[in-house]
Amino acid sequence: MIKKPVSILCFSLLSLLGSLQADEGMWLFNGLPLEQFKSKYGFEPTAEWTDHLMKSSVRFNVGGSASFVSSNGLVLTNHHVGSDTLNKLSTKENNYYEDGFLAKNFDEELKAPDLELNQLIEITDVTDQVNQSVKDNMSPGEAAAARQTAISKIEQTATDQSGLRSDVVALYGGARYHLYQYKKYTDVRLVWAPESAIAFFGGDADNFEYPRYCLDACLFRVYEDGKPANVDHFLKWSDNGAKNDELVFVSGNPGSTSRIYTMAALKYERDHYLPYVLDFIRRREILLQQFGLNSTESARIARDGLFGFQNARKARMGMLQGLQDPALMHAKQQAEQRILAQVKEDPKLKQYAAAWDKIAEVQQQKAKRLGTGISLNTRLFNIAQTLVQMSDEDKKPSEQRLAEYRDSARDSMEQQLFSSAPVHPELEQVILGDLIARMLELRGADDPLCQQILEGNNPLDRAAQLAGGTQLMDVDYRKKLAKQGTDGCQDPLIQLAQLVDPVVRQQRKESEELQEIERQAYSQISEALFATQGTSTYPDATFTLRLSYGPVKGYQENGIEIPAFTTMGGTFDHETAHQGQADYDLPQSWRDASAKINPDTPFNFVCTADIIGGNSGSPVVNKDLELVGLIFDGNIQSLIGDYIYSDKQGRSVSVHSSAIRDALRHIYNADHIADQLGN
Amino acid sequence: MIKKPVSILCFSLLSLLGSLQADEGMWLFNGLPLEQFKSKYGFEPTAEWTDHLMKSSVRFNVGGSASFVSSNGLVLTNHHVGSDTLNKLSTKENNYYEDGFLAKNFDEELKAPDLELNQLIEITDVTDQVNQSVKDNMSPGEAAAARQTAISKIEQTATDQSGLRSDVVALYGGARYHLYQYKKYTDVRLVWAPESAIAFFGGDADNFEYPRYCLDACLFRVYEDGKPANVDHFLKWSDNGAKNDELVFVSGNPGSTSRIYTMAALKYERDHYLPYVLDFIRRREILLQQFGLNSTESARIARDGLFGFQNARKARMGMLQGLQDPALMHAKQQAEQRILAQVKEDPKLKQYAAAWDKIAEVQQQKAKRLGTGISLNTRLFNIAQTLVQMSDEDKKPSEQRLAEYRDSARDSMEQQLFSSAPVHPELEQVILGDLIARMLELRGADDPLCQQILEGNNPLDRAAQLAGGTQLMDVDYRKKLAKQGTDGCQDPLIQLAQLVDPVVRQQRKESEELQEIERQAYSQISEALFATQGTSTYPDATFTLRLSYGPVKGYQENGIEIPAFTTMGGTFDHETAHQGQADYDLPQSWRDASAKINPDTPFNFVCTADIIGGNSGSPVVNKDLELVGLIFDGNIQSLIGDYIYSDKQGRSVSVHSSAIRDALRHIYNADHIADQLGN
Repeated sequence: MIKKPVSILCFSLLSLLGSLQADEGMWLFNGLPLEQFKSKYGFEPTAEWTDHLMKSSVRFNVGGSASFVSSNGLVLTNHHVGSDTLNKLSTKENNYYEDGFLAKNFDEELKAPDLELNQLIEITDVTDQVNQSVKDNMSPGEAAAARQTAISKIEQTATDQSGLRSDVVALYGGARYHLYQYKKYTDVRLVWAPESAIAFFGGDADNFEYPRYCLDACLFRVYEDGKPANVDHFLKWSDNGAKNDELVFVSGNPGSTSRIYTMAALKYERDHYLPYVLDFIRRREILLQQFGLNSTESARIARDGLFGFQNARKARMGMLQGLQDPALMHAKQQAEQRILAQVKEDPKLKQYAAAWDKIAEVQQQKAKRLGTGISLNTRLFNIAQTLVQMSDEDKKPSEQRLAEYRDSARDSMEQQLFSSAPVHPELEQVILGDLIARMLELRGADDPLCQQILEGNNPLDRAAQLAGGTQLMDVDYRKKLAKQGTDGCQDPLIQLAQLVDPVVRQQRKESEELQEIERQAYSQISEALFATQGTSTYPDATFTLRLSYGPVKGYQENGIEIPAFTTMGGTFDHETAHQGQADYDLPQSWRDASAKINPDTPFNFVCTADIIGGNSGSPVVNKDLELVGLIFDGNIQSLIGDYIYSDKQGRSVSVHSSAIRDALRHIYNADHIADQLGN
Repeated sequence: MIKKPVSILCFSLLSLLGSLQADEGMWLFNGLPLEQFKSKYGFEPTAEWTDHLMKSSVRFNVGGSASFVSSNGLVLTNHHVGSDTLNKLSTKENNYYEDGFLAKNFDEELKAPDLELNQLIEITDVTDQVNQSVKDNMSPGEAAAARQTAISKIEQTATDQSGLRSDVVALYGGARYHLYQYKKYTDVRLVWAPESAIAFFGGDADNFEYPRYCLDACLFRVYEDGKPANVDHFLKWSDNGAKNDELVFVSGNPGSTSRIYTMAALKYERDHYLPYVLDFIRRREILLQQFGLNSTESARIARDGLFGFQNARKARMGMLQGLQDPALMHAKQQAEQRILAQVKEDPKLKQYAAAWDKIAEVQQQKAKRLGTGISLNTRLFNIAQTLVQMSDEDKKPSEQRLAEYRDSARDSMEQQLFSSAPVHPELEQVILGDLIARMLELRGADDPLCQQILEGNNPLDRAAQLAGGTQLMDVDYRKKLAKQGTDGCQDPLIQLAQLVDPVVRQQRKESEELQEIERQAYSQISEALFATQGTSTYPDATFTLRLSYGPVKGYQENGIEIPAFTTMGGTFDHETAHQGQADYDLPQSWRDASAKINPDTPFNFVCTADIIGGNSGSPVVNKDLELVGLIFDGNIQSLIGDYIYSDKQGRSVSVHSSAIRDALRHIYNADHIADQLGN
């Protein structure tokens, strides 16, 4: 599944391979490829078309996309986007993640503990305002700080004026800055979710594969003033859903791509970063598997995290495999050499050539720094760190604070910090113990900071002390510390966060300086590309709203034709073909309803629209803005899309709209919900 | 389970913490702690006692221990030692690993494709002969070569004279060399194995834990001239088996320990080697899991390898956790400083002080070299490499060849090389693809050798070409190449082995030079320890026969008393307690026989005997040399035993002899086998 990666690189991007072929691109809503729509598809969307689609689209801040699908606030997204909330709402007795959930009426709809949904209202170009703040003679650190201050002011002013969430987004490697303003929904309630067995049918084995048979969907509803919200913009439900060869549009929030990356940056990813991250992912995967062996309850607690890491592993493997392909790298290299030659020949562009060298230098620094940081990220440690930093930052004026501690960000931060989502101390302890052990491995166990952390104990015993001794499970205690500060606090996790904070801050500073050098260089590379290739292109993904498009279309694999569609009936065949294997058992609800299910109803389908992690839950619409599908994955061949788009085999994978409607009516006995869809 | 680690460090060892406390030690059969036996236990074994136990003991060359338990050649070992053979004998139709096996008569006993069993006949001290070959003015490389040549001559002469397998073993870090002579058995047949579900009950979750409920046993039989062998030395079967507090003896082949390691060496293990190896283990574990998701048949094929890696991971984790304990390292450091001070003060010993520095220097070299090697170990690649190297080595006189290609080793080598054990090309391909990808990660994908290996393809496609194009699955083809040499051979795997062989040889040379420096240094440290602490001690494990001892005894964990014994009846309770979890389902045979099983029959038990990987399958005997148990594991707390022995909580875990006998009679309807035990 194409979950948004945990850490987003906020660089923007642009096709390095020259001309845009096929239906490539994650386009800005204020910069759609209208000429291409017209020339290739004879389609000319109106401003109202764009505005309606934009405002019908919803962003899940936990990392995913969604859409409004009824006037009374129904929000459609993936089961795997909702899974974080499903797990947080689940208990030992009621496992909504595994067993599904259906509210019979508004009263039964379950409030999510910490969801924030964003509806994009307006985009404004603020490039000049941001750039004015940075002077030529500034060091990277000064430039970054000055830009950050300018951005912070723009955001604060916009928030004050509109009451909307206001984020300045760096696009095209920092060559452009746009202000995104969102309406926020924080009262979000669960309406319906199917069983995980059908949402993620085929499990890790089928993940990123095609053909697929997954009902990876669930429904939430936004509330305002304790009542279902009236929303002006929502998508109609298509009668028949997506059809073969039909042009469809995907409106969602791709998390991050790296298509602007230079060869040096790609090699850093290939030879250093991805192998490093994959080692960490596999380590956590094994750790969570082992934790799950303790009992069925432990397995339940670990499951969501485990799926996340399995998914990340498969995604990163796909990326690394692409980068390890000599043919692909050769093509990238040739394209880069062509552009560099053009830049060096042109007296006006010559100045930009050094940007490529700067990027290369930064990669060397990054390779050296890899693994030297403080990595103790557990839910409770992160809470401790936030409280400790907040305590120090709040002593400064808002605009001088680290970005996330400024007044403008306080609401979102507190929603996370004071979330009542359950914490599992045993799991916290196991993860913390492993992270401390890993720090010893990476820094060498004799490292003085490591020895200070251990306080004479081995990592596992130390983690037991920390997890056993902290009171941070208690939300009221967090609120108390947020209010009174953490100075003198005796909580062991708070004290740990205080111990490492100077190093955390120093490393963050160094890292931000490197990012600033990269940002400046990519911004210059973008200018060079604008100059040589024109400005009508799209930037790298930034977890902001984009439009992708392309036809519904199958593909060839090992000489075999893979059709675009699967059917609901085929799901039963798929179960039979994998009998005896884990994750291939259909839930009882499907068995019970098998006579009522029309076997020919399309279930999943693929199209060529250019998507990436973060697009999960994106609505797929036709030209008439009817919902025809729900993005939930990309196939293996699409994973290299982080670096390069190809529609030869790369496909995005969706649940068909008819399958969702039919499942609600015939399997989940939810006519009352199905009746609301699109109305 | 305490499998022998894949690569054995052949250093020998000695307690670094000064006096031998408790019942520590893996003692040489020609250097038993007779005084300790007498003073502590009033036990004085005769020479016949020792000789009978030695000759009743059997070594499995795949990595494990065993014993003769009948006059007609029955050999008792662990199911997990036999598992390699069980898998090789299994097919899609007959899964002996999973479903178990029972031969109703001699004719049904199944010949193992490539087992070699060794029975130790004689030990001779050859230290002077070996040391004479090394002159003071030799470089490390010259010294290693000279010593190797001397060893090779001793071995060849011994083989020629006795017809026995003859191995010179370096003990006490190379301070002593002993010649071990073995009778070899190569016609080994499977007699009985239980289902894996009870042999490995509780699976990865229970592995290295206690209490346990595992029938980790199986029976083979050695044949000579096509008939069951008559063996003079075999163990009687005890009527009642091991009793609480009873002194017991373990005779087996511990694979490798590192108790002589200096602080610098331990820190290299802690900060470099173990983290590196664990990353690799976790990577392979995930790879094999993923392969197993393809189908139930894929899962079967991957299972043995997967268990091996899971087991190795848990064992290495235990070792690393021990080394990351500040208290333990502090104790080790103090002991080292004490000895060093003693050495430096003594004019005669002063010369040895530099040995500690030498070890420290070598660790730095080793840390730099980590991950730079050629690591393409798959079954078929290893065959290719052996054939390529054999082809070159056979052009030289025997004594100038790499050790494993000399005439004296040819039989053992050919048994492996020409084994008819099934090869699974799909699994070979997946592992090879991952190993090539990993080489790209470790060396950087632009590395010229990596690019030569790829031949323009990505790692997975290249692996498909190699695995798809090779003929090495065919044993006759291997025999042909072994005979005619590999020059000009067009097989793609042979060509790959030829491509990398110069680098493989260069790195082996460098690595052997470092080992030689270490060997000389540890030999000096051993001399220093002999001088300060006396010679009546035991060397580090070397996968040669050792005797351990200690009482049957429970222990305390988190304030709870863990009794020494579990019972067969308790197995059913253990199943109930873990209902719904993988690997906790008893086989049908146990359910069917539940009424016939005496619930009070002891099933597993622990004792304090000092064991390590390689001891799996060791017989546990009482003073009267009756078999009372079968070693199959150590608990988590024993894993640090690689570096230091402690009987506070560390325990070896055995199957009780009565459980094996009762299971044969009442569960497996194998009275005809049970009747032979001990007779």
